[in-house]
Amino acid sequence: MSRTIMVVNPNTTRTMTDAVVAAARTAATPGTTLVGGTPTVGTASVESHVDEVWGAVGVLEQVRVGEQSGVDGYVIACFGDTGVQAARELARGPVVGMTEAALFTAALVAARFTIVTLPRRTREMSDRVLRDTGLSHRCTVRAIDVPVADIAEGALHELDAVAAEASLAIAQDAAEALVLGCAGLADLVGPLRERLGVPVIEGVAAAVAMVDGLLAQGVTTSRAGTYAAPDRREPSA
Amino acid sequence: MSRTIMVVNPNTTRTMTDAVVAAARTAATPGTTLVGGTPTVGTASVESHVDEVWGAVGVLEQVRVGEQSGVDGYVIACFGDTGVQAARELARGPVVGMTEAALFTAALVAARFTIVTLPRRTREMSDRVLRDTGLSHRCTVRAIDVPVADIAEGALHELDAVAAEASLAIAQDAAEALVLGCAGLADLVGPLRERLGVPVIEGVAAAVAMVDGLLAQGVTTSRAGTYAAPDRREPSA
Amino acid sequence: MSRTIMVVNPNTTRTMTDAVVAAARTAATPGTTLVGGTPTVGTASVESHVDEVWGAVGVLEQVRVGEQSGVDGYVIACFGDTGVQAARELARGPVVGMTEAALFTAALVAARFTIVTLPRRTREMSDRVLRDTGLSHRCTVRAIDVPVADIAEGALHELDAVAAEASLAIAQDAAEALVLGCAGLADLVGPLRERLGVPVIEGVAAAVAMVDGLLAQGVTTSRAGTYAAPDRREPSA
Amino acid sequence: MSRTIMVVNPNTTRTMTDAVVAAARTAATPGTTLVGGTPTVGTASVESHVDEVWGAVGVLEQVRVGEQSGVDGYVIACFGDTGVQAARELARGPVVGMTEAALFTAALVAARFTIVTLPRRTREMSDRVLRDTGLSHRCTVRAIDVPVADIAEGALHELDAVAAEASLAIAQDAAEALVLGCAGLADLVGPLRERLGVPVIEGVAAAVAMVDGLLAQGVTTSRAGTYAAPDRREPSA
Amino acid sequence: MSRTIMVVNPNTTRTMTDAVVAAARTAATPGTTLVGGTPTVGTASVESHVDEVWGAVGVLEQVRVGEQSGVDGYVIACFGDTGVQAARELARGPVVGMTEAALFTAALVAARFTIVTLPRRTREMSDRVLRDTGLSHRCTVRAIDVPVADIAEGALHELDAVAAEASLAIAQDAAEALVLGCAGLADLVGPLRERLGVPVIEGVAAAVAMVDGLLAQGVTTSRAGTYAAPDRREPSA
Amino acid sequence: MSRTIMVVNPNTTRTMTDAVVAAARTAATPGTTLVGGTPTVGTASVESHVDEVWGAVGVLEQVRVGEQSGVDGYVIACFGDTGVQAARELARGPVVGMTEAALFTAALVAARFTIVTLPRRTREMSDRVLRDTGLSHRCTVRAIDVPVADIAEGALHELDAVAAEASLAIAQDAAEALVLGCAGLADLVGPLRERLGVPVIEGVAAAVAMVDGLLAQGVTTSRAGTYAAPDRREPSA
Repeated sequence: MSRTIMVVNPNTTRTMTDAVVAAARTAATPGTTLVGGTPTVGTASVESHVDEVWGAVGVLEQVRVGEQSGVDGYVIACFGDTGVQAARELARGPVVGMTEAALFTAALVAARFTIVTLPRRTREMSDRVLRDTGLSHRCTVRAIDVPVADIAEGALHELDAVAAEASLAIAQDAAEALVLGCAGLADLVGPLRERLGVPVIEGVAAAVAMVDGLLAQGVTTSRAGTYAAPDRREPSA
Repeated sequence: MSRTIMVVNPNTTRTMTDAVVAAARTAATPGTTLVGGTPTVGTASVESHVDEVWGAVGVLEQVRVGEQSGVDGYVIACFGDTGVQAARELARGPVVGMTEAALFTAALVAARFTIVTLPRRTREMSDRVLRDTGLSHRCTVRAIDVPVADIAEGALHELDAVAAEASLAIAQDAAEALVLGCAGLADLVGPLRERLGVPVIEGVAAAVAMVDGLLAQGVTTSRAGTYAAPDRREPSA
Repeated sequence: MSRTIMVVNPNTTRTMTDAVVAAARTAATPGTTLVGGTPTVGTASVESHVDEVWGAVGVLEQVRVGEQSGVDGYVIACFGDTGVQAARELARGPVVGMTEAALFTAALVAARFTIVTLPRRTREMSDRVLRDTGLSHRCTVRAIDVPVADIAEGALHELDAVAAEASLAIAQDAAEALVLGCAGLADLVGPLRERLGVPVIEGVAAAVAMVDGLLAQGVTTSRAGTYAAPDRREPSA
Repeated sequence: MSRTIMVVNPNTTRTMTDAVVAAARTAATPGTTLVGGTPTVGTASVESHVDEVWGAVGVLEQVRVGEQSGVDGYVIACFGDTGVQAARELARGPVVGMTEAALFTAALVAARFTIVTLPRRTREMSDRVLRDTGLSHRCTVRAIDVPVADIAEGALHELDAVAAEASLAIAQDAAEALVLGCAGLADLVGPLRERLGVPVIEGVAAAVAMVDGLLAQGVTTSRAGTYAAPDRREPSA
Repeated sequence: MSRTIMVVNPNTTRTMTDAVVAAARTAATPGTTLVGGTPTVGTASVESHVDEVWGAVGVLEQVRVGEQSGVDGYVIACFGDTGVQAARELARGPVVGMTEAALFTAALVAARFTIVTLPRRTREMSDRVLRDTGLSHRCTVRAIDVPVADIAEGALHELDAVAAEASLAIAQDAAEALVLGCAGLADLVGPLRERLGVPVIEGVAAAVAMVDGLLAQGVTTSRAGTYAAPDRREPSA
Repeated sequence: MSRTIMVVNPNTTRTMTDAVVAAARTAATPGTTLVGGTPTVGTASVESHVDEVWGAVGVLEQVRVGEQSGVDGYVIACFGDTGVQAARELARGPVVGMTEAALFTAALVAARFTIVTLPRRTREMSDRVLRDTGLSHRCTVRAIDVPVADIAEGALHELDAVAAEASLAIAQDAAEALVLGCAGLADLVGPLRERLGVPVIEGVAAAVAMVDGLLAQGVTTSRAGTYAAPDRREPSA
């Protein structure tokens, strides 16, 4: 049962794609191959709603590539899940966003949890997925307010800042698990688990596991309404 | 106090832009000029999430045009409000989506109301704005399930279908007003008001009035977080 | 297109009516005349639920006056929107409360916002309108806890207190806009905008703009249920 | 431990007060005296928001009478609970609305329930209390759409209509109990219980029991904020 | 009208049953006899979900005892209401949990309130009942984080801790009443009322009053669905 | 990486355990061994809240067995997720209920979905998990109202009934996927997918995939509050 899952990085920074794929590999089952997808057009990181528009364009581009090369399922590796719903319309196989996957995973191991994200301005991206998933009553959102560019080469120098904010969430919000609010924070999973003593959820790994599970169940996106395949009228960007 | 409001049609069908602008003109104050914005790239109508991605690209293109030509505020004329949040980041003046405007307007004249949209698959676009605005407890969503293309030349032949669905909403959902779920239904406003005897809200007109009102109050988009201007890293599509 | 909008002040303090009307005038379109309505019976300010009962009586009195003199639409100038629903039953034209108008306006320019009200005890009035409008998930409520009487002659001496509370909301609640929680705070709009750098929404101005917009769209209150005209059985108070 | 509870009928129809007090008597503990309160000013029945304003004025009038004559607690006998919050500010003892009492009572004996009210237009009064109490997720609202005047002399001739609507709620809404949506329906309690085989909740009786219970616990309205006694500035109506 | 209400203590500590029954006695009407029910199997206190499972087993055991001895109604004296829904299926008469009773009681005397519970880990039990009752929008949950065992001999030594946390709730959450989050805190009712000046709700007393009221109204659990009597297939534990 | 997941059937019917384990096997990764757990005490099926109490006792018994034999994670195979929270306190590894797993899975492939359950009386079990997970806004609950015993030997004879109810959900609730509301319906997955053309989610398979995924991510239950290991005070049933 060999499968291929494409991890689509909605920004154009290939080193970030590689790092994200590497970090998520352990969450895949042995027979599953992870490939990265990096858009040729878009922005270097996704921090604003404008970035999200271009991130979604990039997601669609990579899903089209994936469909032609026989990809079985997709993970969208951007906190906020930009382009996930559109990708579901194009892909034969299941598509899972890192945010929804992280929230559902946290909900299986903790009564309440917190998202720690980077720029304050991206808080709305978390709030939007919380409204979609209905988990607002169990999750708070916090930000350390540094730009995403700050972690382009790795996030270890932000370990103290993220840990401090997560500790506040544990003390003040009664959070019992931490959701990392950016794909670029994956290298903090180990250090934060040790430091905080609570589950630390990394959404790309969570999403890879969920796509793997959907494929194992033979379940893919419903075509009965919202995610029916669109008439092909896509422009070439 | 002369102002210019651009009504951005997220699809590439110029005749639709012209019709929408014409229909909304009466809602503008005497000193306000309405101009239409039609993207050069995108899809002919917006029915799917894939279409919404390209619709948002088109919205950004037209807002950039508008910013260069001194537009004071923007209406996004697509049910579902694609691109509205991104447009807020780019525009100096206020940006209002036709869906949020229609819902807030309906809430001022009716305790409960209904949206009648076209294809069943677009129901999620209404649900999403209902979650964002918090008005789910006062609004139901119904569809007559015809493609948007069906009304490309006008919607009068769908009068009976929309009226029938709205009547069901009045009888079964206790709806007291009707929100038209597509910019292309504007020519039904008059006939439906007469037929149904309840307020019929057309979102583009509602949004024009709200942008006019924001400009009159001297209120524009907050820059304090979510809608701060992004670093300019936009690609050329 | 000349219209008359009556701004009904639910308390009996005529100087407050005059101040409120003056402050809201810029939000009206050129062809619109604003007139004030001050009840002959009621309380000097509205701070309690008992006050609200008498405020509603005063609102009805003034709407009856307005209906006889051809008023086209009404703004109810009391935070908490006392009497708005009853007024809708009596008036031919649209009726908008300053609170609902302020909340909808804030929702068009900010992802999250805060109300700063005066006495702590009036917090429930804000909460009630938040429940009605469904915007609780995007709005917090704060109080500086001074009596309304304190600002009878103007509110400038409370600038520091309101600004301090609003700053807390920006920092702690991630608020991106401020809604003034009392019609008597209108003279703080300018100073607060300058001080805080975020949109400051004054509900009477917001409501005037919304009534103007409803009139422009030819939309008035639905008669299909909740707001049908009552059988005339009103007592003379 | 002898106590007096006043059942305030917000309309001016004394026969209705008498009927309501008689019906609720069995719910009172042996040591409790029920007295009726009928306003001298107001409307003959409460069906509209305008009626509610005058109903609230009548409630306040009777609470003042009650406070002077040593009443220990109050029941407001109008579906929609008009004036309850204002009455809490005036009364030393507890004040309970028939609607909130009915809903809490139903929630103790059924997972889901329905309100059957009279005129369709009063549905919003039920919805409002459902929002206040938070029980919307367990309760539907239905109407038989006859005017309240229709049951001025008793409601037995509406037994079939109410039973039919309640049966629909049991079948379609999975309702497991019925809440009577008008104080004037009290004489249907027995016949409906027999006919439907589910609990039938009459709000005035429910509220009498709750006021009795609050008095037994020594609990009265909080003075810490919302319901603090207002400064006495009430006009004479 | 003589009635017997059994107060079921879901833990096996008989001294706690006696204390709880004694404290609640004043809330019962003169004709009502309170008897305690202490399970023969279970845990010494209920702090975890595992404890709750055994607490529910004990509740069922005692309800079976009660049914055989003619008990008219039941109060389940454990914060979190473990076993309440199952008990409703077994008992002829009404069954009320101390948590739901406390929340509904608080909602009758305060716009917002707070629960102060003991171990942090039991917070989820409060949250669960808040979701069931729908009162999350009016109630916060706080913990002083001591084990239940700490108050086995009385809770007076925790007066300062509970009062401090309640004071924070009044100041920061705008709470206007306090709900005691454990049956073992009943001896704090008097001292806390004096100290805090707000209503202090003790759930067992609240539930006794509500069962008394249901019996007076002739209302018991619906058999129409959720709480229909189960086929008797219970094992002997 | 060889793992063992125990699928705990909360009722005492071993043939049902075997069938459930067999059906879920394909959802497990190649290295994962599924073992069944059948309680020695309890009820033959779980349809009532009383059954759920005994089901939870059985779950705890089997989790203790599993902990002693090195089980890595648990699936609780009862719609309603009885005992899941308690099991989390006892188990070192993750514990997932079939209901929460099914709902999260459905949410990844459909905008809206429906649960079709068996006896009407179990509807509340679905509603409870919907409240916990927050997915009420995307899911309806329907019942075919036959006892669980009816499908003891397989569910194929109920194919028409389930399909009919699911078709109603697709037409009336705009459902886009079906969640099977009982572990005993697993043999309908294939036929229903073919008949309905929408995703059909079987919760045990979904939960096996999620436990597998949690183990792959190295994530287990948080010990920071709600699910901390209890002091061992369990009685022997």
